[in-house]
Amino acid sequence: MTDVAIVGAAGYAGVELTRLALGHPGLRIAAVTSTADAGRRVEDVYPALAGCGLSYVEPDVAAIAEVADVAFLAVPHTAAMALAPAFLAAGLLVVDCSADFRLDDAATYESWYGAAHTCPELLEEAVYGLPELGRERLRGARLVACPGCYPTAALLAAVPALRSGLAEGDKVIVDAKSGVSGAGRTPGETTHFPAANESLSAYKVASHRHTPEISQELGKAAGRSMRLAFAPHLVPMTRGLLATVYLDAAPGLTTADAVSAYAAAYAGEPFVTVHPAGRMPATGEVRGSNRAHIGIAVDEASATLVVACAIDNLVKGTAGQALQCANLVLGLPETAGLAYPSPVV
Amino acid sequence: MTDVAIVGAAGYAGVELTRLALGHPGLRIAAVTSTADAGRRVEDVYPALAGCGLSYVEPDVAAIAEVADVAFLAVPHTAAMALAPAFLAAGLLVVDCSADFRLDDAATYESWYGAAHTCPELLEEAVYGLPELGRERLRGARLVACPGCYPTAALLAAVPALRSGLAEGDKVIVDAKSGVSGAGRTPGETTHFPAANESLSAYKVASHRHTPEISQELGKAAGRSMRLAFAPHLVPMTRGLLATVYLDAAPGLTTADAVSAYAAAYAGEPFVTVHPAGRMPATGEVRGSNRAHIGIAVDEASATLVVACAIDNLVKGTAGQALQCANLVLGLPETAGLAYPSPVV
Amino acid sequence: MTDVAIVGAAGYAGVELTRLALGHPGLRIAAVTSTADAGRRVEDVYPALAGCGLSYVEPDVAAIAEVADVAFLAVPHTAAMALAPAFLAAGLLVVDCSADFRLDDAATYESWYGAAHTCPELLEEAVYGLPELGRERLRGARLVACPGCYPTAALLAAVPALRSGLAEGDKVIVDAKSGVSGAGRTPGETTHFPAANESLSAYKVASHRHTPEISQELGKAAGRSMRLAFAPHLVPMTRGLLATVYLDAAPGLTTADAVSAYAAAYAGEPFVTVHPAGRMPATGEVRGSNRAHIGIAVDEASATLVVACAIDNLVKGTAGQALQCANLVLGLPETAGLAYPSPVV
Amino acid sequence: MTDVAIVGAAGYAGVELTRLALGHPGLRIAAVTSTADAGRRVEDVYPALAGCGLSYVEPDVAAIAEVADVAFLAVPHTAAMALAPAFLAAGLLVVDCSADFRLDDAATYESWYGAAHTCPELLEEAVYGLPELGRERLRGARLVACPGCYPTAALLAAVPALRSGLAEGDKVIVDAKSGVSGAGRTPGETTHFPAANESLSAYKVASHRHTPEISQELGKAAGRSMRLAFAPHLVPMTRGLLATVYLDAAPGLTTADAVSAYAAAYAGEPFVTVHPAGRMPATGEVRGSNRAHIGIAVDEASATLVVACAIDNLVKGTAGQALQCANLVLGLPETAGLAYPSPVV
Repeated sequence: MTDVAIVGAAGYAGVELTRLALGHPGLRIAAVTSTADAGRRVEDVYPALAGCGLSYVEPDVAAIAEVADVAFLAVPHTAAMALAPAFLAAGLLVVDCSADFRLDDAATYESWYGAAHTCPELLEEAVYGLPELGRERLRGARLVACPGCYPTAALLAAVPALRSGLAEGDKVIVDAKSGVSGAGRTPGETTHFPAANESLSAYKVASHRHTPEISQELGKAAGRSMRLAFAPHLVPMTRGLLATVYLDAAPGLTTADAVSAYAAAYAGEPFVTVHPAGRMPATGEVRGSNRAHIGIAVDEASATLVVACAIDNLVKGTAGQALQCANLVLGLPETAGLAYPSPVV
Repeated sequence: MTDVAIVGAAGYAGVELTRLALGHPGLRIAAVTSTADAGRRVEDVYPALAGCGLSYVEPDVAAIAEVADVAFLAVPHTAAMALAPAFLAAGLLVVDCSADFRLDDAATYESWYGAAHTCPELLEEAVYGLPELGRERLRGARLVACPGCYPTAALLAAVPALRSGLAEGDKVIVDAKSGVSGAGRTPGETTHFPAANESLSAYKVASHRHTPEISQELGKAAGRSMRLAFAPHLVPMTRGLLATVYLDAAPGLTTADAVSAYAAAYAGEPFVTVHPAGRMPATGEVRGSNRAHIGIAVDEASATLVVACAIDNLVKGTAGQALQCANLVLGLPETAGLAYPSPVV
Repeated sequence: MTDVAIVGAAGYAGVELTRLALGHPGLRIAAVTSTADAGRRVEDVYPALAGCGLSYVEPDVAAIAEVADVAFLAVPHTAAMALAPAFLAAGLLVVDCSADFRLDDAATYESWYGAAHTCPELLEEAVYGLPELGRERLRGARLVACPGCYPTAALLAAVPALRSGLAEGDKVIVDAKSGVSGAGRTPGETTHFPAANESLSAYKVASHRHTPEISQELGKAAGRSMRLAFAPHLVPMTRGLLATVYLDAAPGLTTADAVSAYAAAYAGEPFVTVHPAGRMPATGEVRGSNRAHIGIAVDEASATLVVACAIDNLVKGTAGQALQCANLVLGLPETAGLAYPSPVV
Repeated sequence: MTDVAIVGAAGYAGVELTRLALGHPGLRIAAVTSTADAGRRVEDVYPALAGCGLSYVEPDVAAIAEVADVAFLAVPHTAAMALAPAFLAAGLLVVDCSADFRLDDAATYESWYGAAHTCPELLEEAVYGLPELGRERLRGARLVACPGCYPTAALLAAVPALRSGLAEGDKVIVDAKSGVSGAGRTPGETTHFPAANESLSAYKVASHRHTPEISQELGKAAGRSMRLAFAPHLVPMTRGLLATVYLDAAPGLTTADAVSAYAAAYAGEPFVTVHPAGRMPATGEVRGSNRAHIGIAVDEASATLVVACAIDNLVKGTAGQALQCANLVLGLPETAGLAYPSPVV
């Protein structure tokens, strides 16, 4: 059993990590931290976890280092880079769910996040934690930077086309739709039930902070600089994220060809399902699971390759992915703790 | 007072027409028809209309022609073209909410709808009922072909850019998100509450029947043939439709420029609001109303003009638009019966 | 035209009053006040009211008294009693949506609301604003105390049985279910979308502040002191409130008898519909409307009379009722501004 | 490993059984049957179960008897009694989720279900499958009749009070609220998304078929005949059921006393949590889990004991309970396959 700490465990990402780690056969939760809820029992904050026996503690690095070998960071950006060096120095594996180590370039980070990067020297070492795009570097990693929910869905949808030449040009459009839990646990005006319910909205079009992260990885996949138009939307549901990606189709590309290429690209992936031609994914299919479901259509009249990818934003989009990465780093089965069947409704 | 008949009044489009016509100061409902519900009181089918005093009758053209001057057709495609010629011959104004008279070309109709057009000679006379794109031809029209909900939102979003040269190229991407009422009143597997709730899905990507209608009108606006990639999505909410449209921005176009151009294009329009830069629309803003709210952002890095348009699919997307068109044909104030303030939640 | 001011107009009750007053043929909005939003245009706070032309101002009694003849108070309890005397002194009709003038007894107020009543001398003059239970005293009133949403539904369900002797004993159980908008506009932990969505909860059982108000009016109807068990519930929907009321049925009472008695009791009421035996109401039937729909069943085995009443908590439960009362005081048609048909979905 | 068959596996109860059995360490699914979907892969019907490797087969008793030792019946009433005798004759344990074996008295069955009971001789042998009310008889049972979702929540809420004398009299009121999945997989008018969404309704008040089952078990708990008023409600959410139960409190009973008594009654129960005074349950707390959360308040003014119990209607209300019962019969750990932590949102 590997002892893990979940830092920032009272937010939605943290509590989802808690839930999944509780059910993981190879992990033991040594500490769950929360500055705001320190001293409270987890089940008093979240009655759904009745019986789990955990209580929140202050995020003390030294104390955590004594009891845990892995630190999952489920804290906001800037908070993660304030903690990561100390955990690494203490010999822990750090799996970070924030944005702090996802971008290769500190200047890009600073321009999009409005804060100086305090440990840019770690950026090169950090491994981008999207196993389906490359799990080799994860084995033996010390610092994993798990992608955000939007990049996960967008990249799973777009990368095979760019790697294999199904798509041409240098432009990708990502129209993404997220459930409200993506906005986190803190109440606010746009997430107030009467405001969010029965309403779908676009927001932060062309200005969302996930833009440079998606662009960076699209460029690596294509082997050339890619331009991205990214439009996020807020959907009246709690969980789920669907990214619909539009690429310029290579000449003559058909839906059947594209489906075959994606099926080949994801063959053997334990968490990815490529739907046959004619079937598009729904977020309900992956609710609560670490799976990604992909549907593909080529609009021949406009030579557009449309790929839709559905994930659960809190699982494959956050906590499940962090566990999947940890499994790979630790040499555990990749699906450990993540293979449960998810509810159909 | 003008006497109107609503044909197919027990479906969602029809009952919304009924509701709006009941509150219209210049219209009087002479008949509401429903083959399935003939003989039943409207309020027994829809308790929300308690006290309206109406009952459904069979759709008998001769009987309707005796009591009404306007026939709103809220029946499925093919049923509308089976009825329209007789109503026209009887001297009624026909305002059709189906697809039967929207396409200029009978062959296109037949290839997308899988049925021969039975009165192609009316296609040229039919006036496309989207007043914001051209209300002149509506005055004096005999047959109005109201656009569907997807085309309404897509065209309101895209047309000013194409007319004014804000957008270049020949390709338009429309990513549209619709509430479930767009699927109509008949229960089915995908609209069953547990299936639709808490799930967002893409469907009929590159194959939805509204594609040729949108393409046709985009081409007219641009003055050149346009290629359209259209991806509809089903959203877990009852009402509302948001179309996010992606166009190739003209060189140097900024968000501020685009907002100004749209504000100018829609100046004086009673039902269109163009949001300032930085604000994107939500469908909740237009719930129950005939309004369209538009938000605009230019992604300069990728030279993409993104325009989002929110409407209520059953009002501006169907019944409200039909009334707006009827007002224009009849010489009534364009906003008659449609100017009520809509609820904020 | 009567000039009205809406005080506290940026909360949900206030904005709903604004919306309804905008569509009222006999009222003109002279001022909408909001301390928090003073200086902002209404449509910038609530885009759904685009084009209304109003802006929020500070709640200045003297300034309001110069321009308005009626003050609708949509402010929290204690704030209303701080304002009402000055408005009354300035000669305005005060229609209060808060709890401050609903209870006959200042001591009861103080024990349930934890605040001393600052103008108990007005309690006797205040007229309880539920027209269906007695509209006579409203004509000529200076101060109307509109009931809350829970009391409105509970009393409309229970009072006819108590007045007519259909129910015996001294105990009434009210199990009430409210949409989330009843909690108001301010975001909080329990109204955060991911917390409220897909979850139904009981809250404040046997301790909700509407308890003494319901008890008081039940006692008046029965002509004897009544004991009330009141259990409110929060339902994952924005609008709507259904109260299911359980009374001890008189010996031999049948469903048919009870339905007849209720139909007779509410005969001629413009906003109340009593469903036939076998049909129970749904809140969706009254969404956006000032109507109350009532269904009745007698469980003969347990001699229980069950009456369910559905209202829209923001209309008949708050803003619509305030307008209905104002209409009666002002001598306008009781249904003025409230007779529009409501949407079926 | 015990081989099990799930009969009627394509309905909601059946697919939930499938999901839970897939994750159960001691069960192996030998067959999933569906008359309508025979021949289809489970994942083609329910993409959420992608990768499960199962396909539906016809419900052939002989074939099932060859491969399975347990038959879970997730078929409608009357269909279960048509199958159970043959499965029993073939030596299988039968765990039935239908109503066919829940009532002690065949005449009561026939009057409420409108069908003759075809194997009344099995009624005495059938064990009512609500372990928290008595798990002794389950060990060694051949035929388990699992209670419905409404009885499960109502009985967990009411029985301790009746057994311990916290409640007096002979009358119990159960006001229950169910998510829409309780209506099953077949689409219909009331479960159509636009009809069910944003609406709460009462239905089948005093006439729901679960009434005699609840009455029967209440009577056993009280040791006297009990009269039940039962009012079910449909709530706009997919999963979850909350029963609010009203009993006549014994003289002097306080909330603290009642909470203590319930905590004692359920001490050691793996799936029941009794909330402290002041906290009421929400269905969201038990979403996806086999847990029941109970909150208690005594309204001293009216001498009413109010107990609310929240369950997931498809887990503790159906499939989870069936597994829990099977665990007990088979001598497996009672929580096997059911102890996973459930999601907090």
